[in-house]
Amino acid sequence: MTTKTPLILVTNDDGILAPGLAALVDVVRHLGDIIVVAPDSPQSGKGHAITIDVPLRLNKVDAFGEIEAYECSGTPVDCVKLAMNVIKKDRDFDLCVSGINHGSNEAINIIYSGTMSAAMEASLEGVHSVGFSLLDYSFDANFEPAKPFIKSICQYMLANNARKTRLLNVNIPTGSIEGMKVCRQGEARWVEEFREAKDPRGKDYYWLTGKFEITDDDPQADVNALRAGFISIVPSKHDLTDYTDIDALKPLEKQNGIHKV
Amino acid sequence: MTTKTPLILVTNDDGILAPGLAALVDVVRHLGDIIVVAPDSPQSGKGHAITIDVPLRLNKVDAFGEIEAYECSGTPVDCVKLAMNVIKKDRDFDLCVSGINHGSNEAINIIYSGTMSAAMEASLEGVHSVGFSLLDYSFDANFEPAKPFIKSICQYMLANNARKTRLLNVNIPTGSIEGMKVCRQGEARWVEEFREAKDPRGKDYYWLTGKFEITDDDPQADVNALRAGFISIVPSKHDLTDYTDIDALKPLEKQNGIHKV
Repeated sequence: MTTKTPLILVTNDDGILAPGLAALVDVVRHLGDIIVVAPDSPQSGKGHAITIDVPLRLNKVDAFGEIEAYECSGTPVDCVKLAMNVIKKDRDFDLCVSGINHGSNEAINIIYSGTMSAAMEASLEGVHSVGFSLLDYSFDANFEPAKPFIKSICQYMLANNARKTRLLNVNIPTGSIEGMKVCRQGEARWVEEFREAKDPRGKDYYWLTGKFEITDDDPQADVNALRAGFISIVPSKHDLTDYTDIDALKPLEKQNGIHKV
Repeated sequence: MTTKTPLILVTNDDGILAPGLAALVDVVRHLGDIIVVAPDSPQSGKGHAITIDVPLRLNKVDAFGEIEAYECSGTPVDCVKLAMNVIKKDRDFDLCVSGINHGSNEAINIIYSGTMSAAMEASLEGVHSVGFSLLDYSFDANFEPAKPFIKSICQYMLANNARKTRLLNVNIPTGSIEGMKVCRQGEARWVEEFREAKDPRGKDYYWLTGKFEITDDDPQADVNALRAGFISIVPSKHDLTDYTDIDALKPLEKQNGIHKV
């Protein structure tokens, strides 16, 4: 039985200076060898974007004492790709943790989230990954109550070699925490509004804003576990196939372009 | 029985000037009332990114004759949000088509793809949506052979009111087309490489490049249907929950932060 020190990648989407990143480094720093690679500017809402049309910059920074840390000019997904293919190309990561995000990534937010996209990118490369998000968007959010739970989840991920690569979407409520609950991704939507105005030159502009609306009353949905005071843990995956619709679509196979343009 | 003219949103990620967009407009222009909203610059690889930190611009353009068309300064997802919440906020779309993308969005490419993210965004709002991609990255790709099949799929989507909102990821091979096949998302990965070099000032930069590697031999996988000359149709969804892992993770619920930080 070998007891190799695990190699842990820490990243986020709020950027290298975000207090949520420092809180996450603080939790995992004694669980293994740590490498931090985070964007050099906030990248919220960047989803699974990658940078292909401009080159990327990567700078070593002294942000966390003796811990090896880098800032990158790209997206959260770029950070993970650089960590794996440039910084540590000769060694495999045992765990990737992303966050702690300042704000919720529950429900459909997972697809807009740079935090979760970074975690998913690592999982695509076979690394167990967790994205952590606190339901508080403020810069000075209090991450302390979440720390023991996050440590517990990281220790579980390091100790349990699952049959396949795991990707967890973990959201943490504010206020008193009742415990942890394994959930499914809840149904919710953003009711969008654009603030319309004119710039100083009289030209129209539109600024995205919106209200998060929960449309799910299942207690197993992450949205409802969170509102009951639980940390929600949603096992997630990158296969977006809707298997329930494959048979229904079979008639399409017979059409083979018989309708002329 | 009402025979309302359907309202169809056309978008893409290669931008308003891409020939693939013109080809898609050409296919659907007689299927309903058409609105085109596309990015004002190429947005490949932008995934489900949204623009929240700067305002968006939206300009009416004369790109497709009498068809109402707009260019937007944001991402493909922004285009769909603006179409639904600003341009046509008083009328529901019956179909959203995105593409025709210059290049593949098969397999895992779906999560990096602006084309598919635009389609998914429309589906989140209850609009049946299809992303179309041709396996040819060149600007002067030949979209003609694909057109009858795309028309057939659009007619099917308009004629069949599915039990729930449909989102299809359609990829089209180059060369002779054998027919259409309903598939699942295949397993594949990008073997990444970063081209490392120094800029004119002697500072390192990294430019993302990579090789697409198929790791799936199931004929029902989109990757293999495409290589057999079929158009692949993958019904897709936004619920990323891995339901098969929920029970296995239950032990986490009992841990409730008992490990002290």
